[in-house]
Amino acid sequence: MNEFELIARYFTRSVHERQGVGDDCALIDVGDRTLAITTDLLTERVHFFPDVAPASLGHKALAVNLSDLAAAGAQPRCFLLSLSLPRADPAWLEAFSRAMLELAAREGCELIGGDTTRAARIAGTDGPVTVCITAIGEVDRSGLRGRGGARPGDDLWVSGELGDAALALAHASGKVRLEPDQARACRQRLEWPEPQVALGLALRGLATAAIDVSDGLVGDLGHVLQRSGVGALVRVPDIPRSDTLRQVEPQLQRRCLLAGGDDYELLFTAAQADREAVAVAGRACCVAITRIGTMTKGPGLHLEGDPGIDAKLQGFDHFAGTPEA
Amino acid sequence: MNEFELIARYFTRSVHERQGVGDDCALIDVGDRTLAITTDLLTERVHFFPDVAPASLGHKALAVNLSDLAAAGAQPRCFLLSLSLPRADPAWLEAFSRAMLELAAREGCELIGGDTTRAARIAGTDGPVTVCITAIGEVDRSGLRGRGGARPGDDLWVSGELGDAALALAHASGKVRLEPDQARACRQRLEWPEPQVALGLALRGLATAAIDVSDGLVGDLGHVLQRSGVGALVRVPDIPRSDTLRQVEPQLQRRCLLAGGDDYELLFTAAQADREAVAVAGRACCVAITRIGTMTKGPGLHLEGDPGIDAKLQGFDHFAGTPEA
Repeated sequence: MNEFELIARYFTRSVHERQGVGDDCALIDVGDRTLAITTDLLTERVHFFPDVAPASLGHKALAVNLSDLAAAGAQPRCFLLSLSLPRADPAWLEAFSRAMLELAAREGCELIGGDTTRAARIAGTDGPVTVCITAIGEVDRSGLRGRGGARPGDDLWVSGELGDAALALAHASGKVRLEPDQARACRQRLEWPEPQVALGLALRGLATAAIDVSDGLVGDLGHVLQRSGVGALVRVPDIPRSDTLRQVEPQLQRRCLLAGGDDYELLFTAAQADREAVAVAGRACCVAITRIGTMTKGPGLHLEGDPGIDAKLQGFDHFAGTPEA
Repeated sequence: MNEFELIARYFTRSVHERQGVGDDCALIDVGDRTLAITTDLLTERVHFFPDVAPASLGHKALAVNLSDLAAAGAQPRCFLLSLSLPRADPAWLEAFSRAMLELAAREGCELIGGDTTRAARIAGTDGPVTVCITAIGEVDRSGLRGRGGARPGDDLWVSGELGDAALALAHASGKVRLEPDQARACRQRLEWPEPQVALGLALRGLATAAIDVSDGLVGDLGHVLQRSGVGALVRVPDIPRSDTLRQVEPQLQRRCLLAGGDDYELLFTAAQADREAVAVAGRACCVAITRIGTMTKGPGLHLEGDPGIDAKLQGFDHFAGTPEA
């Protein structure tokens, strides 16, 4: 059973709200307003290394939630923080909270509550650091979008560049050898992702569907195809990438681009007629955006100009491959 | 550094919302409505035993959040669930989700989103099960209350009976020997707490302050005294308790009553003039409620009729006594 089947099987009942379990954000109506709500849990050795810099963790834990709000086109409003820690280390907490609250202040997203608990020792070893954040934003009812609104003929766009975060992991595990300054730049992408909040807001009324690239382009695009009931043709050579990634051997480069996670860029669809308006939105936000394909009536994902060295390009799935699955 | 100092030191900035970090719920205004939002993180070996029945855990993880909404007088609306699990075990998930969704349906609180992740192994041992829930309810602006509204002369009330959950823990650790049916009843109180949602709603406009007893009467009452700037006189013999607890030796009985956690009863204050209205609210909800004291102008907590065998009666604090604290 993989993560997505697990969610569907045990936790999806009738969905009365407009979006529910499984989308980047849930939407709830409150009087005449609509809120977008998202939650992400990050835990040691799965989402970050035990020796992660606490400032990076504080930033990233909030950033990944703001990225979900960005995908929904929501204006961030507030968040709650739950922390499980093996100990209360003042230096660690100072760096963690400072980075988190700096990002929060920059995006106008106030910390309003939370919970702290001690992580119990396991087998004589510190229990894991776990960070769970729930973030809340406000959306315009007129500009609502989720993963299900893509239509055949729509352009497929992506912000920024993909693959450097995955390349940083490949470097850390010795699969590739980068120059120190290249490695530093990739590690920055992995550890300090910048949520595309402004772009998400600028695309209200333009994007027909959107998702943030957290589990890899192919896996995340797959959610859009499934929910929208459409297919897609992606021109692989057009996928934006850094000069560093461009120099890496083709098989690894392809994996980082198509199946690498942790990019936190926005992947979105928009009508061809809105092509210029989308470009204007990108420029207004000082964010590079690139057309990488077209949505198709026929189902499935077609990768054009892809060397096709291997077929394993699913996004990251937490429960795939466990012995019980 | 204890849990409460930790929160205050690193995570409390200017609080723009009406209630913020540190109260049972945060309150946010959305258009002409007000939402109460709470989050709780439960982790293995701290909040529950590794062999906990998954149904009990599913129930309790949601119940403790609904209990926070009850303290705020909120009507539960929806919740998000984040789960970190060492593996996807269908039997475990089936029991866990069924109990959680049963309570959710009963209280009208819909699951709208969440996150699932794998817990990494640590030192060759399964990583801990961690459950983080964020629950959202709606409050009447006219009936708002937190921990800060108690006034000198107010009655102090508590719902139900206190101490049996702590007694179950004492039994489990061999500190007391209960008859099997007594042990079962206490364990039920520990593992299947019933959030006082209906009472919380019925007390809107009556309770001047409220908190749920999760960390122990003395500790939780201390938060009310601190936030309200008042003292309290508690008549210890009046604190409601089960026949089982009444038969236990005085020192343990006192600890369970005054410092035992996990009761999830409502502790609240109300004007003396509303004494009859409060009693009516309790009867309407079929919940026993008991007057156990009076709020005082002078600060501090005075325990009347207390044998006073020892002075250590703080509520549960996750970080007190860690070597680094």
